[in-house]
Amino acid sequence: MKIAIAGSGALGSRFGYMLHQAGNDVILIDKWKEHINNVRTKGLIVEDGEDKHVVQIPIYYPNEVRDQVDIVFMFTKSMGLGEMLEDIQPILGPHTSVISLLNGIGHEDVLKNYLPLENIFMGVTILTSGLAGPGHVAFSGAGLTEIQNFVHGEEQEKIARNIVQVMNEAGINTNYSTDVKFSIWRKACVNGAMNATCALLDCNLAEFEATAQAETVIRHIVREFVKVAKEKDTLLDEDEMVQYILESARKVGSHHPSMHQDLMQNHRPTEVDFLNGAVARMSEGFGFDAPYNRLITQLIHAKEEILSVH
Amino acid sequence: MKIAIAGSGALGSRFGYMLHQAGNDVILIDKWKEHINNVRTKGLIVEDGEDKHVVQIPIYYPNEVRDQVDIVFMFTKSMGLGEMLEDIQPILGPHTSVISLLNGIGHEDVLKNYLPLENIFMGVTILTSGLAGPGHVAFSGAGLTEIQNFVHGEEQEKIARNIVQVMNEAGINTNYSTDVKFSIWRKACVNGAMNATCALLDCNLAEFEATAQAETVIRHIVREFVKVAKEKDTLLDEDEMVQYILESARKVGSHHPSMHQDLMQNHRPTEVDFLNGAVARMSEGFGFDAPYNRLITQLIHAKEEILSVH
Repeated sequence: MKIAIAGSGALGSRFGYMLHQAGNDVILIDKWKEHINNVRTKGLIVEDGEDKHVVQIPIYYPNEVRDQVDIVFMFTKSMGLGEMLEDIQPILGPHTSVISLLNGIGHEDVLKNYLPLENIFMGVTILTSGLAGPGHVAFSGAGLTEIQNFVHGEEQEKIARNIVQVMNEAGINTNYSTDVKFSIWRKACVNGAMNATCALLDCNLAEFEATAQAETVIRHIVREFVKVAKEKDTLLDEDEMVQYILESARKVGSHHPSMHQDLMQNHRPTEVDFLNGAVARMSEGFGFDAPYNRLITQLIHAKEEILSVH
Repeated sequence: MKIAIAGSGALGSRFGYMLHQAGNDVILIDKWKEHINNVRTKGLIVEDGEDKHVVQIPIYYPNEVRDQVDIVFMFTKSMGLGEMLEDIQPILGPHTSVISLLNGIGHEDVLKNYLPLENIFMGVTILTSGLAGPGHVAFSGAGLTEIQNFVHGEEQEKIARNIVQVMNEAGINTNYSTDVKFSIWRKACVNGAMNATCALLDCNLAEFEATAQAETVIRHIVREFVKVAKEKDTLLDEDEMVQYILESARKVGSHHPSMHQDLMQNHRPTEVDFLNGAVARMSEGFGFDAPYNRLITQLIHAKEEILSVH
């Protein structure tokens, strides 16, 4: 299979490496100069536990790619999705399957502007990975990836199941999902309840969870997620979500969520518009208000401006 | 007049000093040991612009006071109001006027538990003052103080006007207000829109005002203040408040509001329950919700816990 990884950071490089090792014709696409230079001159360095590998995989800037591929895995930041799709138009043929594995909700609204609906496949992964430096990826957590065709139908499902097979053959533990929207919303709800709050309060998951306020704040945020998800035909259970989020925070403990890393540690723009911001935006379309997610979003954007991350 | 200053920090000391210089029989009441020791051994040091004075004014711990006074000015932090009133019961006679000059709203609900309604006088001041150290007060901004009787009636108004006269004779520029509740709500609304947000975002007034989010966030908070104030028969104008708050923030510029000082700089508990928290609490009683003020309050309390200010 000809496969492109659009956004070859920590997780994209992990997918790219595994698909390449399985014999696919993989290209990496990214914008980070040092990363690209290192992969080109020294190869991609991959650390998987005790093992260390160096592999040569072609890597390109988005505006350099030319040849149509069979599958594209999208691994950009949410804010960069549209621009990436714009740039990589030359590799998108009439039968190229594009799989969105981005965090958050509302990405289909961006994908639709660049692709025929039948070419869109939505996914969610709990695999994680880290970058030890430019050109140097270190695998971390294992876990399941789920994907599903965006347009229902036998033909579409067949394509999705074929992609699932390609992924499993590469050692990426993947299921065909009959309701990937549920998994996407569920993951977004967990992130929406914890990421922005920990970023605003400048604390880790366990520190926030330990406050007397945590359960109520989380419940307010979750309730609005549940309400909007329902309008999108996705049923989340408020109580179950709140308990799951509190338990996860206790377990994961001292981890600072990615939005905290982006905002407070690296002063980068956050993905809040595809988590809390998406709920606030979508609620308007359904004729109700989501004040908790709206205020959280606004405070995060204000903090981004104060730290001048733009 | 026999006058007690209950809470003799920066502003209380300023009032106490001025009333003492005008010939009143003033006692200071406070709980801060170093402050009390310094005032007792070295006198109260007062800096007023270029002038520096040292005066001997009696100062007591709350549980040391014994003799009934004519007037008590309450200058505690909001959270300390009830405890102070409990402690100073011996100085409160049947005709002792108690003037609340605390920031925020909802203090009457505390005062009512300790005093006959006719003895309560509500006030608001824009005078400011700073502490250069224990026993050492430095006057800063000048400005008007307003007071009014809590219970309506000729007799009550007469007492309030008499207090106004005592204050003006001491050089404290004071008006008898026919609607002090309006001034109190107005000031609380300004503080409610800016203080907690600047504390949460760890920024000064101008930094917050300069963000693209400021006006919307301020409007959401103000709208709930306006709605609750209306139920309390106090009419604030949303647009006028929002414009006034934005202009003030631009003017005052690099000032960090008191809640930022309490929370972020000194890791002390904040007065949020008597600003945003009061609006959230009161809205429930009136059968509606105030989610913006509620979430702001909860995030401030969470941050207090994370910084372990209690």
